[in-house]
Amino acid sequence: MNQKMQWLRNKMSSLNLQGMIISNPVNIRYLTNIQAEGILLVTRKENLFITDGRYIEEVHNTLTLFDEIVVYDVRGLSRDDYENFFMFCENVGFEENYVTYAKYKEYMHKYKINNLVETENMLEKQREVKDEEEIENIKKACEITDKCFEYILKYIKPGMTEKQIAREIDDYFYKNAEGKAFETIVASGENSSKPHAVPSERKIKEVDIITIDMGCKINGYCSDMTRTFFVGKMPEHVKLVYNLVLKNQEQVLNDMREGSNTKQISKMVDNDFRLHNYDLIHALGHGVGLDIHEAPVLSINSENVLKENMVITNEPGIYIAGQFGVRIEDTVLINKGSCEALTKSPKGYIVI
Amino acid sequence: MNQKMQWLRNKMSSLNLQGMIISNPVNIRYLTNIQAEGILLVTRKENLFITDGRYIEEVHNTLTLFDEIVVYDVRGLSRDDYENFFMFCENVGFEENYVTYAKYKEYMHKYKINNLVETENMLEKQREVKDEEEIENIKKACEITDKCFEYILKYIKPGMTEKQIAREIDDYFYKNAEGKAFETIVASGENSSKPHAVPSERKIKEVDIITIDMGCKINGYCSDMTRTFFVGKMPEHVKLVYNLVLKNQEQVLNDMREGSNTKQISKMVDNDFRLHNYDLIHALGHGVGLDIHEAPVLSINSENVLKENMVITNEPGIYIAGQFGVRIEDTVLINKGSCEALTKSPKGYIVI
Repeated sequence: MNQKMQWLRNKMSSLNLQGMIISNPVNIRYLTNIQAEGILLVTRKENLFITDGRYIEEVHNTLTLFDEIVVYDVRGLSRDDYENFFMFCENVGFEENYVTYAKYKEYMHKYKINNLVETENMLEKQREVKDEEEIENIKKACEITDKCFEYILKYIKPGMTEKQIAREIDDYFYKNAEGKAFETIVASGENSSKPHAVPSERKIKEVDIITIDMGCKINGYCSDMTRTFFVGKMPEHVKLVYNLVLKNQEQVLNDMREGSNTKQISKMVDNDFRLHNYDLIHALGHGVGLDIHEAPVLSINSENVLKENMVITNEPGIYIAGQFGVRIEDTVLINKGSCEALTKSPKGYIVI
Repeated sequence: MNQKMQWLRNKMSSLNLQGMIISNPVNIRYLTNIQAEGILLVTRKENLFITDGRYIEEVHNTLTLFDEIVVYDVRGLSRDDYENFFMFCENVGFEENYVTYAKYKEYMHKYKINNLVETENMLEKQREVKDEEEIENIKKACEITDKCFEYILKYIKPGMTEKQIAREIDDYFYKNAEGKAFETIVASGENSSKPHAVPSERKIKEVDIITIDMGCKINGYCSDMTRTFFVGKMPEHVKLVYNLVLKNQEQVLNDMREGSNTKQISKMVDNDFRLHNYDLIHALGHGVGLDIHEAPVLSINSENVLKENMVITNEPGIYIAGQFGVRIEDTVLINKGSCEALTKSPKGYIVI
């Protein structure tokens, strides 16, 4: 059995779970490499993946004998089969943060389970700490993101639209990686005051401010980076805000290491922003992996302690409605006594 | 209040619901045009959308006074506020097919609701039948899809990879629409035997078979079309399968109209395929709208009756593992006595 499935079986046994239903496709991919619609069941006797005719061929190509996963076509299963999978299982785990209320009721009925047990994000928590191969994939995605940023700085000219720039970035990621990891943000001028702006037809001016938030995927693993930069020249009134964001972003990099308390770190940034009459209106960061947003959340509302080999973002931002915004974000690898920004694009004033 | 919110209030009152929590962002967009993270509450007194700092500005720009939706920043709400929203509500509806089991429990607790009631996809069912504006959007998306297909037939040359062709399609949709509606499928040679193939580095040969499944978005509304065609020449042994798929696809277009039973139509195709020793391994079709896959499902496993102004796909396919596959798909508008294929690309043998 592969290492991750073996971990799951050990974990289940420590939680007194005799069975487990895994429905979240990202968790299924994490555990098995399978990228197909279907459901993964871990029973007393075996690991099985139930899928349909569209995916049978692909799934068989993905799995090796070593995986010890039996593939079933949903069309070949009877009511009795479903009822037998978890027979004599006292407790069966499920993903209460992924499974809908309707599916929960369906599972109880279909598998005849008496005790469907919440597993409190145990798979998502396990995914927080990356292994060597996962880190390599993220590093590669970050490298490509840096190169894309270098490329795009040369590409951007006044008169281009935000959409056109976003398309160029997407195309770069399509050619050099597995495509974008999320909807690319290109927010210029007053649009930069919206943290989640959608690229528009607004044209870049001779003197302008641009925030780009982008990332790509390698073997399913994501990168995430934001830079705010300037066209023509950097307006004086933006400098104070830029410096404040940058100072905090760098201070956070200084403070992140195994054992750091993310609530404290977020609080520190929030306090410093407030001292200057600004607000940290979104989380300071989030985990990055097979999902672009995954556990842990780094914010003043949640208590988390960083662990070695977590990969997270560090992305303070200040937004002044109707005027402009500044956000600086790196994807960061947590080490024992320090951390390493995996995205390495320059953070000083960039004027193109 | 806008028409869709008014419909919802009437529906709620007929179901004896005094309140409703709407969490699915697609349903929220359908009802309000809001495209932001957050939750829509319909209470006795008002309609309210709770979001966070990232979206406040955008949401205010989207809404008009006419919408009668009050926007709240999540940071400004206290525990009491939450408990007051549904005070004296006997029954509060929720989306049991969207809300996770964990969220369900959270809602009960946070809003102090005694009776959180399943609403059986009432919003998804309402979305099945499109209004004039929605149909216009889908028609436009289908037109652009047809043009893209015409363009891509001229673009494809032996030696290009599937990925390269998919990228060109995506780029076309980015330039001429709001981008792709789903991951474009370009499946050539033996890859075409996988209904959900992911574009690979496989190069198109001098004589080859290609299946392309693609669609784009206009104002959030999707199109969906598949064609299987040939490079160099059409192999004799494929003709039988192609003819069988095409015959059934056209027969289905003949049979679809207000009042048609989708289970019967699917059964007819399945039977004809079986007569020739093939299987209909996926659903015959699905609704298309703000979601690329939405209600209803057209398959032998579910009973549905078509209604005027539904928009659905008609996509029979045959897949011979390791060899090749043929799928022909149109997006179709249901009328009273007939139906109209909104995607109009040619379906006879196409050889490029």
